[in-house]
Amino acid sequence: MGVVVQEIARADAAVIAALGAAGVSTVHEAQGRRGCLAPHMRPIYPGARIAGPAVTISAPPGDNWMLHVAIEQVRDGDILVLAPTSPCTDGYFGDLLATSARARGCRGLVIDAGVRDIRDLTEMGFPVWSKAVSAQGTVKETVGSVNVPIVCAGQAIAAGDVIVADDDGVCVVRREEAQEVLERAEARLAAEAEKRARLAAGELGLDLYDMRARLAEKGLKYV
Amino acid sequence: MGVVVQEIARADAAVIAALGAAGVSTVHEAQGRRGCLAPHMRPIYPGARIAGPAVTISAPPGDNWMLHVAIEQVRDGDILVLAPTSPCTDGYFGDLLATSARARGCRGLVIDAGVRDIRDLTEMGFPVWSKAVSAQGTVKETVGSVNVPIVCAGQAIAAGDVIVADDDGVCVVRREEAQEVLERAEARLAAEAEKRARLAAGELGLDLYDMRARLAEKGLKYV
Amino acid sequence: MGVVVQEIARADAAVIAALGAAGVSTVHEAQGRRGCLAPHMRPIYPGARIAGPAVTISAPPGDNWMLHVAIEQVRDGDILVLAPTSPCTDGYFGDLLATSARARGCRGLVIDAGVRDIRDLTEMGFPVWSKAVSAQGTVKETVGSVNVPIVCAGQAIAAGDVIVADDDGVCVVRREEAQEVLERAEARLAAEAEKRARLAAGELGLDLYDMRARLAEKGLKYV
Amino acid sequence: MGVVVQEIARADAAVIAALGAAGVSTVHEAQGRRGCLAPHMRPIYPGARIAGPAVTISAPPGDNWMLHVAIEQVRDGDILVLAPTSPCTDGYFGDLLATSARARGCRGLVIDAGVRDIRDLTEMGFPVWSKAVSAQGTVKETVGSVNVPIVCAGQAIAAGDVIVADDDGVCVVRREEAQEVLERAEARLAAEAEKRARLAAGELGLDLYDMRARLAEKGLKYV
Amino acid sequence: MGVVVQEIARADAAVIAALGAAGVSTVHEAQGRRGCLAPHMRPIYPGARIAGPAVTISAPPGDNWMLHVAIEQVRDGDILVLAPTSPCTDGYFGDLLATSARARGCRGLVIDAGVRDIRDLTEMGFPVWSKAVSAQGTVKETVGSVNVPIVCAGQAIAAGDVIVADDDGVCVVRREEAQEVLERAEARLAAEAEKRARLAAGELGLDLYDMRARLAEKGLKYV
Amino acid sequence: MGVVVQEIARADAAVIAALGAAGVSTVHEAQGRRGCLAPHMRPIYPGARIAGPAVTISAPPGDNWMLHVAIEQVRDGDILVLAPTSPCTDGYFGDLLATSARARGCRGLVIDAGVRDIRDLTEMGFPVWSKAVSAQGTVKETVGSVNVPIVCAGQAIAAGDVIVADDDGVCVVRREEAQEVLERAEARLAAEAEKRARLAAGELGLDLYDMRARLAEKGLKYV
Repeated sequence: MGVVVQEIARADAAVIAALGAAGVSTVHEAQGRRGCLAPHMRPIYPGARIAGPAVTISAPPGDNWMLHVAIEQVRDGDILVLAPTSPCTDGYFGDLLATSARARGCRGLVIDAGVRDIRDLTEMGFPVWSKAVSAQGTVKETVGSVNVPIVCAGQAIAAGDVIVADDDGVCVVRREEAQEVLERAEARLAAEAEKRARLAAGELGLDLYDMRARLAEKGLKYV
Repeated sequence: MGVVVQEIARADAAVIAALGAAGVSTVHEAQGRRGCLAPHMRPIYPGARIAGPAVTISAPPGDNWMLHVAIEQVRDGDILVLAPTSPCTDGYFGDLLATSARARGCRGLVIDAGVRDIRDLTEMGFPVWSKAVSAQGTVKETVGSVNVPIVCAGQAIAAGDVIVADDDGVCVVRREEAQEVLERAEARLAAEAEKRARLAAGELGLDLYDMRARLAEKGLKYV
Repeated sequence: MGVVVQEIARADAAVIAALGAAGVSTVHEAQGRRGCLAPHMRPIYPGARIAGPAVTISAPPGDNWMLHVAIEQVRDGDILVLAPTSPCTDGYFGDLLATSARARGCRGLVIDAGVRDIRDLTEMGFPVWSKAVSAQGTVKETVGSVNVPIVCAGQAIAAGDVIVADDDGVCVVRREEAQEVLERAEARLAAEAEKRARLAAGELGLDLYDMRARLAEKGLKYV
Repeated sequence: MGVVVQEIARADAAVIAALGAAGVSTVHEAQGRRGCLAPHMRPIYPGARIAGPAVTISAPPGDNWMLHVAIEQVRDGDILVLAPTSPCTDGYFGDLLATSARARGCRGLVIDAGVRDIRDLTEMGFPVWSKAVSAQGTVKETVGSVNVPIVCAGQAIAAGDVIVADDDGVCVVRREEAQEVLERAEARLAAEAEKRARLAAGELGLDLYDMRARLAEKGLKYV
Repeated sequence: MGVVVQEIARADAAVIAALGAAGVSTVHEAQGRRGCLAPHMRPIYPGARIAGPAVTISAPPGDNWMLHVAIEQVRDGDILVLAPTSPCTDGYFGDLLATSARARGCRGLVIDAGVRDIRDLTEMGFPVWSKAVSAQGTVKETVGSVNVPIVCAGQAIAAGDVIVADDDGVCVVRREEAQEVLERAEARLAAEAEKRARLAAGELGLDLYDMRARLAEKGLKYV
Repeated sequence: MGVVVQEIARADAAVIAALGAAGVSTVHEAQGRRGCLAPHMRPIYPGARIAGPAVTISAPPGDNWMLHVAIEQVRDGDILVLAPTSPCTDGYFGDLLATSARARGCRGLVIDAGVRDIRDLTEMGFPVWSKAVSAQGTVKETVGSVNVPIVCAGQAIAAGDVIVADDDGVCVVRREEAQEVLERAEARLAAEAEKRARLAAGELGLDLYDMRARLAEKGLKYV
């Protein structure tokens, strides 16, 4: 049943970099409040910000064999994205796999399961967003698939989709929509700068966004 | 159904500051082991310690409109406290709202839901205690209420009650009891200093607190 | 019902120290992927690495009396390990107990419940692995037991078993197996160094571990 | 710290009975979508429907002493409502306590913790809404309070408030608002009967509630 | 942002009926252990078994407006499948909506959120698989989409995919694969009948499936 | 690493039967409020009551191979008890395995994971206590162990220990203590009969257990 798709399309590198600079919260708003992975996906250390095309992995619970298979498919700048076929918190990934992935140019890992060797990964500066930190080891007995469509932490992700990850979590952008989402994200960032200045000066959101009439219409009473 | 209460009573500023200095664990003990919000309420960065009167917000799930309404009600030193009317992890609050809240003198946010723009909030030094970090955005469609009694993370909180928050979590003190709780907290802190010295010198709690007879009476056997 | 076992056997100090240096993930692999406590057991601050014999505590929910009893049983280098008899997140342990425990030579605490005074414990450098951070206080009304076999976060632990804890979580090694597990852990570490170098040089795990034939046999298809 | 309030006001028995007949979902809507306890509060057997004034209990985790105290305060038709001071799943209540409570006229129990002797309670027809079923026993060592305000499963409840419970869960109605909520509930039920008939005949909610224009205005597109 | 897709393809009715007769566990095995929704999706009453094409709904948290929109799109035999855009346990659906859905020929509801009016739905025999039972009401303020691809309880579902649901949970079969999955399911059922007879007669799975040699090879020791 | 222990000691059949008749809640009290498995272990249908010696299984996540191995070790009256080595909700067991287990005299299954074919198991009257119901299938690739000590749902269980299970959950009694626990359970049941009668007649627990003085001493105030 296991399949490895070797050729995948990737978005333009400049678009990906710009989406990463915009950050998860902005990108997700720019595509209509869509694409956020579940909030249990947390970074193993603060401050990391990455973006890249997804190399997707569908793996059995407690079996990390497909990570080795997937690393061969990584190209410079890619992000590994692993979804177990059943809920699992085992530690699929540690410093040896990170060393191998980095040697292929991998920028980081998004895994709806566990990760270990946190100290080493932190020292290496290899970022991971995961559901758990767990030393519990895995086996290499059952094949899964690489670069097939997966559902990871509540989001459908196809190989080559753009992953954006930072302290706010992880967001996916369809490869075909990346350029358009970027444009909206940048428009949003431009607009925010002015709003931030006005809010910092003490102007209220109620006035800045002209909310008072609509609140009254919805029945809000001041007492 | 939405109501905004504009006038609320606040505890004495000096009492509030002293409760904050005592810290969550001491304050909660001083009021009879009451007032702790559920332990899922965690700070977005370590080291923050705040205390202030609560400006309470009851908001629908996935709808942050009332935060804008509440910020207008903030006075210098207040803390925003938001409880969703159904469980929610969405990111109600980010750097723009924090900028606006800070411009009004707000000291921080306690929210039984999600928060985002963690990197920016950390750089601003705007502390938040939340149930989740989530980039998932919200709408502005349904009104809620401000400065009404709420239940937040398991505790009933009235507007103007004193919120104390630090690395141990969040505690609420009834406004009317603030002075009395402070007195007991300070007595407790004074007593702890002497105990700490004796324990550090190797004296056992069994002796310091004179527990041996009562343990024997309860049937504890040494073998 | 409460019992305190005063004499327990402990593993050799040099073996314990070497297990601690090997770390949780390696030690757990060396004993056949066994011994990891559940991944909800997280350190209160990053970077701590300890190992030591367990002084075990079985305590009622919301009652920390037995910690005082257990501290008397601590010898230099021991680790306190507390399992509540029902699930509990209350803050059983804070800076006063840590001061007392440290005065007896205690290296740290592993507790399948809550801990508080996080700021103080961090400043003291007293490491704790816990299920929760919670200011919620406890009583001293019901006896439990010390140095009896417990189940803590999913693992059976006997007094004197070796506890290893670091950023990856907590692992237990049976006292009688400590020497043998250490030997396998050190063999593993030696083998890893060479593998790391080869992986860093770009060699794939697929080749290093000779996986290609077995993957094909299991039906993995490349498309 | 423990207090037992012996005199509490109760709502009119006829109003209570009518609220019970309206049921949880209707009553909660009639008071503005407020008052539902968290959905983890489930009945131990299907089909029970009760309403009555709350006799509230604040009890320590794993300690059921206050249930004995509370039963003395029960009057005919009352419902016991217990909130532990920390999260707990222990089995506070079983067939002996149910026998005692029933002898005082108690209609049922709402408990944000565990219950046991499920088979006996089912045979007795003594309904319980709980967070858990658990045989795990409790102690009688620490006092709590009876008929003080509590927060139970996310709702603030005062002694004498009306509890309504059925297969949909549990709802609380402030004693002072019971009459008014009943009126709105009955209006709602009357309106529902006609709507049900029209919907059963195939009329769409889109037309019955005249939603099409507003959906278009909000931007809904049919493709 | 909201879209309603009005024309969707559906699988052959006879194939759907046969998949329903095969049941969730068999169907999911027949497609390679894929397609199961998360096990938190439980039926509101035991014994229901349905299969039908999915009419998918993407709805905001706490907002059930799109259910009215979706019911217009239902054809005889369809199953409504709702995924909230953020985790939610509110009661989106009750007896009025069930009356309306049934009038359009709807066979049941699969909802990764809450449902209410359990007693009425059970009496009507309208089956629902949900994450929660909750009386907590919803609003009608924000549009979502109907018949777009969704992720529901961990599975990607497209409009027109076949939903199979019974006491074991819920499974989705891609519309295009329905015929092929059915063939494998029926082969599986045929093989099971013979196995069941041999196992009932006392033959061991170890012998029936010829496992002994492979177990020995993997290192299983009998002592 | 896998081991199958073929000879295990079992408690006396009459003692086991009497423990089963006493039921989970009574048995667990009789051994000092010890032995209850976590309350997430729920029966798949109400009303089953069983007791028997444990045949223990340690199995990898998502791999049910060891169930086949264990069934060969079952003797008439035994109960299968499975603990996965990592948390798992997959459906390890269904009607074919139940048919095989029953043919060997197995009385039921206790599994800290998932089970499926609920309808068939219910019709067969084969009782299961599990953490989840899930159709998600498993593989047969990795060996585990049979009749070794395990930790299942928070309790340490040895092969041959007595398992008691009913609507209140599951309890384990050490084989060596079974006779003594039974004696205490029967004494307890005898005492309860008289208490039940007095409570039913309206006598209060406060008087029956002579609690008033001790409550006053602990500071309980009536107001």
